[in-house]
Order: sequence, then C-alpha cells, then structure tokens
Amino acid sequence: MTETGASAGGGRRGRGARGAAGGAEARRAARQGGKVEQLQYITRKIPVFETLNTEALELIEYNADTILEEVGIDFRDDAEALEIWKNAGADVQGERVRFPRGMCRSLAKTAPTEFTQHARNRDRSVQIGGDNTVFAPVYGPPFVRDLDGGRRYATIEDFQNFVKLAYSMPSIHHSGGTVCEPVDVPVNKRHLDMLYAHMRYSDKPYMGSVTAPERAEDSIAMSKILFGDDFVDDNTVMISLINANSPMTFDDTMLGALKVYARNNQACIVTPFILSGAMAPVTPAGVLAQTLAEALAGIAFSQLVNPGAPVVFGSFASSISMQSGAPTFGTPEPALVLYGAAALARRLGVPFRSGGSLCGSKTPDAQAAYESAQTLMPTAMAGVNFVLHGAGWLEGGLISSYEKFIMDADQLGMMQRMLEGYDLTENGQAMDAIREVGPGSHFLGCAHTQANFKTAFYRSNIADNNSFEQWEAEGALDACQRANKIFKRVLADYEAPAIDPAVDEALNAYIAKKKESMPDAFT
Amino acid sequence: MTETGASAGGGRRGRGARGAAGGAEARRAARQGGKVEQLQYITRKIPVFETLNTEALELIEYNADTILEEVGIDFRDDAEALEIWKNAGADVQGERVRFPRGMCRSLAKTAPTEFTQHARNRDRSVQIGGDNTVFAPVYGPPFVRDLDGGRRYATIEDFQNFVKLAYSMPSIHHSGGTVCEPVDVPVNKRHLDMLYAHMRYSDKPYMGSVTAPERAEDSIAMSKILFGDDFVDDNTVMISLINANSPMTFDDTMLGALKVYARNNQACIVTPFILSGAMAPVTPAGVLAQTLAEALAGIAFSQLVNPGAPVVFGSFASSISMQSGAPTFGTPEPALVLYGAAALARRLGVPFRSGGSLCGSKTPDAQAAYESAQTLMPTAMAGVNFVLHGAGWLEGGLISSYEKFIMDADQLGMMQRMLEGYDLTENGQAMDAIREVGPGSHFLGCAHTQANFKTAFYRSNIADNNSFEQWEAEGALDACQRANKIFKRVLADYEAPAIDPAVDEALNAYIAKKKESMPDAFT
Repeated sequence: MTETGASAGGGRRGRGARGAAGGAEARRAARQGGKVEQLQYITRKIPVFETLNTEALELIEYNADTILEEVGIDFRDDAEALEIWKNAGADVQGERVRFPRGMCRSLAKTAPTEFTQHARNRDRSVQIGGDNTVFAPVYGPPFVRDLDGGRRYATIEDFQNFVKLAYSMPSIHHSGGTVCEPVDVPVNKRHLDMLYAHMRYSDKPYMGSVTAPERAEDSIAMSKILFGDDFVDDNTVMISLINANSPMTFDDTMLGALKVYARNNQACIVTPFILSGAMAPVTPAGVLAQTLAEALAGIAFSQLVNPGAPVVFGSFASSISMQSGAPTFGTPEPALVLYGAAALARRLGVPFRSGGSLCGSKTPDAQAAYESAQTLMPTAMAGVNFVLHGAGWLEGGLISSYEKFIMDADQLGMMQRMLEGYDLTENGQAMDAIREVGPGSHFLGCAHTQANFKTAFYRSNIADNNSFEQWEAEGALDACQRANKIFKRVLADYEAPAIDPAVDEALNAYIAKKKESMPDAFT
Repeated sequence: MTETGASAGGGRRGRGARGAAGGAEARRAARQGGKVEQLQYITRKIPVFETLNTEALELIEYNADTILEEVGIDFRDDAEALEIWKNAGADVQGERVRFPRGMCRSLAKTAPTEFTQHARNRDRSVQIGGDNTVFAPVYGPPFVRDLDGGRRYATIEDFQNFVKLAYSMPSIHHSGGTVCEPVDVPVNKRHLDMLYAHMRYSDKPYMGSVTAPERAEDSIAMSKILFGDDFVDDNTVMISLINANSPMTFDDTMLGALKVYARNNQACIVTPFILSGAMAPVTPAGVLAQTLAEALAGIAFSQLVNPGAPVVFGSFASSISMQSGAPTFGTPEPALVLYGAAALARRLGVPFRSGGSLCGSKTPDAQAAYESAQTLMPTAMAGVNFVLHGAGWLEGGLISSYEKFIMDADQLGMMQRMLEGYDLTENGQAMDAIREVGPGSHFLGCAHTQANFKTAFYRSNIADNNSFEQWEAEGALDACQRANKIFKRVLADYEAPAIDPAVDEALNAYIAKKKESMPDAFT
C-alpha cells in the first residue's frame, strides 16, 4: 500500500493543470444550462497579501525548528507512530519525540505542492494548492439554529439539509464533512449516514471520518463503492481533518485516522487547533512558530507513513478572551496569524488550510457578520487553498446556522469575484465608453454599459439595495429574515443529483451490514 | 497669499516626523491618565496590499492621460478657473479644458507628499499621507437613526451628539465634517453651528464647509479665532471635501471652495464621486482611469492656485445595481477600484482618501456589517491615508446611525491594532512560554501570559463572547441592541474638552454677527 502511494504521490506533485474553464466562463456556461449553477474552484488572478518579510519568516521557521529540537512533540498512545519516528532517526523518549533541526522540513519535501481531489461529478473536482482556493461549509457543530426553531441539537435531517444547501450554492465548491453533528444517530454509526448524505445528496467532493481508524476505513470502503476500487487506489477522493491536540501533542485517534488515509493516498489536513492564550502563547509570532512546529511534525509523519501522500498544512488559530476565557473570533490577532501561516505554508511548498467565516455571535447579527468578514477577507487575501467553515458557522462553532449559511455563501461568491481580479482587455479599459459619454453626461445607456451590464457587477441574493420606502413596504426585513426565506426556497427547490441505482444500493447495503454488526453507542 | 502658500507648501513636502509616541505606547499612556483614552493616528507597520503590477498601473496612467488630452474636463461657471488653465497652457474651448499629456502630473509635483493637520489639542493633530491612516466619521447624511426613534431628519442636536461620540471614541482620530446634515438650521447658517460644534465639543481636527466660497471663508475666519491668525496662515488646520461632478466635471461651488482653501494653505480632498455604471464605466480599470484623470485635473488646479497647498487624491467609488439603479456597497468591484486607486495615488506622491464603513442596508444588521467590513478591510489593507465615513454610515449614506457608529468604531480599533503588525521582539516570539509550558499543558497561567494578557488581544466593547446561557440570561441582545446601550452611556458620560472662555465668546460673537447679517434660507 505504501509503495502504491509513493508512486501515485510522486506523480501528483506539481500537477497544476485545470480541467475546465475559469470562474467567469464557468459562470456564463452554467447560466446557459444545467440545473444548479456552479462556480468552479477559484484560481486567483491577484497576488496574495504578504505581511511578513523574508527575515521575519526565517526567524519564525528557526523558532519552529527550535521547538521541534528542544521541546519536542508528544505522540500519544500510538506505539507504531513512535516506532516510525525512531526508525526515521528522531530522538524518542517515552512518548516525546524530538527532531534534529531541519528533519521535518526535509521529510515534508515528498508532499505534493498541489493535488486534485476528485468528485463523483468530475466537473466538481477541485485542485487543492497553488493559486487555487476551495470553499467548504462549516464543520463540527452539535447544534443548529434557524429563526423558526431557534437553537436545538442537530439531527441527521439537518445534516442532509446542509449538504443540500452546500450542493445548491454555486460559491461552495465542496460538500465538506461534519456539516453538523447528527446527535440523533448513534456515535459509532453516525459516520455512515453522514458519508452517505454527501455521496447521495451532492456530487461535490467530501471529507472522510476521523473519529476512529475503523471509521476512516469505512470512509475508504464507501468511497470505493462510489468511485470504483481502482480509481480510489490511484486518486485522491477524500480530504480529512486531522487536528493536533495543541500544544505539541497528537493523539492515537487522529494518528490512527491519518495513517489510514495516508496509506490510501487520501488527503489529510494537519491542523494545530489553537486558541491563543490557552493552547499557545498570546502573541502572533509565538502562535506562528508553534503552529509551524506542530504542522511540520504531522506533515513529516504523513510522509513517513506514505511518501507522496497528499497533505495540507492547516491552521485554526483564534484567541480567548483574557477576561472570561471564552473563544473570540474576527479580531486582528488571528488575522495576523493567518497571513503569516499562509506565507509559511507557501515556503514549505504544501497546500494551506485556514480561515472561513468564523464568529462568536449567538445570532446572525452584525457581530456575526463583522467577525465573519474579518476572517473571510484575510482568508481570501492570504491565499488559503482549502477553506473549511466557509459558510454557516455561528456561536464559536457550536451552531450550524441556516440563515448564516445563506449569508456567508453570498460573501464567498464576492470573494470569488474579487480574486478574479481586473479585466485589462480593451473592453475592461472602457476607453470607448469614456470617449462616447464625455463630461457631464451619464453611462447608463452607453454601448459599453449595455454590452457589459449583465455580468459587470457581483449580484448579491441577500443584500437589499432598494429605497427605504420600498424596503418598508416589503416588511422592513433584516438580512437574517431575508436569508430565512432564501434557505427555505433553496431546500424546496432542491433536486438530488442522479446516481447509479446499483451504486446507491451497494452503499445502502454496506451501511446496513455495518450497522447490524455492532450495538448502538451514544458516547 | 499664493507665495506664502508656495513656501509653506515647499517646507511641508516630505515632512514625516511624528510628534508623539506610537499607537501602543499612546494607548498605554492614555490608560494611565487623561479623561478620554485616545489612540494616535495610525502609522502602519505592515505593508500595503498591491493588487496591480507596474505594467497595469502604467496602462491606467496612460489611459488617464488620454482622457485628459482627448476628452478633457469641464470647469463650469468659473471664468477664473478657465483663465488659470489658459495661462498654464491648457487647451480651453468654452468650459472644456484639455491638457497636454503629462501636464497635470507635472503640476501635481508641488503638492506635499504628506502634511500635518493641526488640532487645537496638539496631541490630536494628525499626519496625512505616507504610512499614516486617519479615521474620520460619516459625512453628509440628512437622516439619523437609532433603535428608539427610528429614522428621522437630523437636527443640530444630533450633529452635536455625533461630534461628542467621535470625540469619545479612541479609534476615531478626526472630528470630521458634516457628521449629519442639521436640517433644522437654515441652509445658509448651518455651517456656522456645525463648525462651532466641532470646535467646542471636540478637540480633534475637523473639516471646513464647502457648500459656498463664503462659507469656506467663514470656516477660515472661525479657525483663526480658534487657532490664532498667524497659526492658520502658517499651518494646515482644516481639510475639506471637494467632490468632482463625475464624469469629468467640476462646478463653481466646489471650485470656489477649493480656491479659498488652497489660497489659505488649507487642505482639500479632490474626490471623483463615482457610482460605476452611472458616472463611470462598469469596469474597475475604466473607473480607475477616469478617477485618476479627474483627480489629476483637480489636484493640478489646486497647485496652480497655490503651489504647495496640501491636497489629497480622493476616490469614492461604488456601483449601481444594474437591475434597480440603486447604489450598492461592499461588493468586490469597488474594493478592486480602491486597491488600484491607492496604488495610483502612491505613484503620484500625494495622500489618498477613500473607503470607510459603507453599506446599503437600512438597519445595522448583518448586511450592514458585511458590507462595511468589506469596505473597511480593503481601506486598511490598501493604505488609505484619510478615511471618511469611518463610522456611522447607513443606508447608502442617507443615515447617520447611532448604533452603527459604535459598532464601526470598534472595527476601526481592530484595524488600528491590525496595522500595528507583529511584535518580533523576544517577548513577541514567546519561546520562553513555549519552553515553560511544553506538550499537552496550557498557557493560561504561564509567566508570559500573565505578563502580557492585559494588552495581548484587541478587546471589543460590543462583541458578546459569553456562553449562550449567560447571553440568554442577559436578555439575548443582538449587537445593535448592545450598541444602543453603549451610545447612550457614552453621551451620558461625555464631558466637553476645556476651551479658553475668550475664544468661545469670540466664536459665538462671530456666529451671532454672521447670522444677523442675512435672512434665513432653507434651500
């Protein structure tokens, strides 16, 4: 398995060709036909925003190597992992692993700079890394919220709803993973229903289960039913979230899932999960060094398991309120960390995951929007390659919000347009329009405006720009109330993508057999 | 007057020294004493975000020169302006002025790259240009809105309230100008009460009246009472907003005010006011060329009036909905224009004004916040030097919102922290903390956290990060409801800065005499 992976991974490095047309073209094509208008993943046309110079980045890299060499990383409850490190030449004392300076960076060299994650609908396959950005929905909340039902525990029906919403939003390129935690399904069987929802109710790429190695194996098995055995052996069809237990610890659950995925050439996102002040120091430069050290250890480990296996440098970094201890979002310090970590990942030559539409607010109000935008804009400007929590995140990740999902998806669409950059063709320069109109007149009716107005400006489906009087006459709805109407309409209009009935049957048979094989567990 | 200006202007060029301590120090100092904690204007420590390469910027500059040469700019109802251009060698046909390629850029060379705008409290003086950013409040709305009274016409009491709020917000460095339009005061006397409010209820720098040349003269006269004749002759104490009537037109009102201010060495912001699709083409590259052409003509004109007079390149650029014709805000296209215009201003070597916290929403809801953040973040990242509409703007600029003022001011504080960048000192690197804590522990109690927690993270006064249960127990207030409480508390706690009673008396006498000299006019 490892060798298969090595050769597949080697072939994958630097693969950067795009299978289909760019954003604007895709949008036009989509408008002309096809049920759900979709945007292809983004390939940015404007530069990334660099906030740190080379000297500063080298300092942080030096500090990360110092952490790896002097402090070390714990690999807990996983004898195999310790054995792998010992064999690779690391200094293993108990569960503490220390790394000669430069060792992890050197091991990371076999990781591909970018890779394709295939979707069952090949038009929805995404390219992860390089100049590309992929938006995925919120991941993990045990609660959902909408205006009608308020805050409540999530169910498998909610899960399916969020998969359907993500499928229906053109600006969301990925079906994600745990779009909410369906607590009405037993813990040990939940992943089967979740995977099935992604496979059946969407045709966008999806994430695998990481809560136990055997659930990762189920994810592989079900993907083989969906894509075919050979295809999954040779290609990446899943990306999965491996969080470090910061500070400087990986546990057996995450290591177990990582090993399964890496050995099967499926992608892992190694993410130090840091609330600054609790899991890391309170300073951005400190968070960056620790994040890089932890990510390097996890990435290097994945390459020891299977050189060439696709792996993503992840960073989830926010702060805690030093008054209440509560996590905070959308503040300046995490944005500084995000810009810095993106630059460190680029220098390492691996894809980068961070950001999203994070907020601490309890409702989709102005706080939620300010904080989400203050996370999403740095996400887009920094050049994040894989954006989890792109839409729907509320209350510090405790809630998947129906209304906020709609609002955030609109913002994702804006970011996509933004990253398309400037049209500097003759039509983009518009000198003929300026000559035609001249001083003191207006551009509304000129030929250039007429030729371009349909696609000239990003069109929000949620913003109200009507007059005050018209807005009042229509009920004086705020953005949340408008989003409530939209999500219901989208779900009402939803039609599942076609699936081969034999595949569907095989998936259901696999799930039924698995469920029968063990008693329900709720912890 | 022109010669005095020339020499003062010459001396002003490149003046970049800062009079007081940097942001973090100022904040610490302010905490230890002084009634209102204030932040000094920002001097950025992170780079600006460049979205266009040199080739693209040169193309836009070439197009701007083509507009100036071939299409020309109208200077309407101002024979003196046409005479000035004729004498300078421009091609004047009727009111249309055409400029030999490069002429305006060459004339603009005498404009200072940055300048100090003095406040009556010298600690509040601001440096406009270079790496500096100054935040000023909303400008122009005829309406105000709060949760209690809803939407209503603004009064002079509202005006005074917004001056008091701006004075009380540490993150707002400038008292602004028409913070709302006090429609209960006669049009021809309004400016006197507005100026007095800035002078009496704040000690931050302020803007002058531009609605008629004689009102600009009043602004100069009242400033001379406040600062002393000699000081105003030798220093810039006002900055005023001169909008072009885009496309490619300046009118006598604005030209009249510009001439008064330029001749008195007071700063003007020459701002093409563009809703793309109406006053300019629908493409960012087209808007940029036209904006640069109009700004160049206005800036060059100011330098012909008084070489060396401080002048700012302004850009107000948003779009209209091509469906309804309504203005839209916070969309990607204006952000692209903003980044591009900032780069063009840097290449021209003059300070730049743009952006703010713009939105089209009718209430301070999620739409308002998304759109404002989507304007403010580019404002900060692009390196805008003077930011009008930093706080309080609602409903496309028709409303000054009390609650949004508070919310926006919080965001301005975040931007200020963001632009302070990274602490790369030993304390900032926090390696001792990482060594002390080690794998699997936490940083809450470590020495480094204890030493830094008070200033480590930006503290929002409006965000609620408490638990859901606590938030519910406290009334489940959204951000707007919390802001409502805050603005009332701030106004209740407000204390006017001290003023020399003789100066106050002289100001009131000037206003009384002026008001007596003419009948009320309401149009």
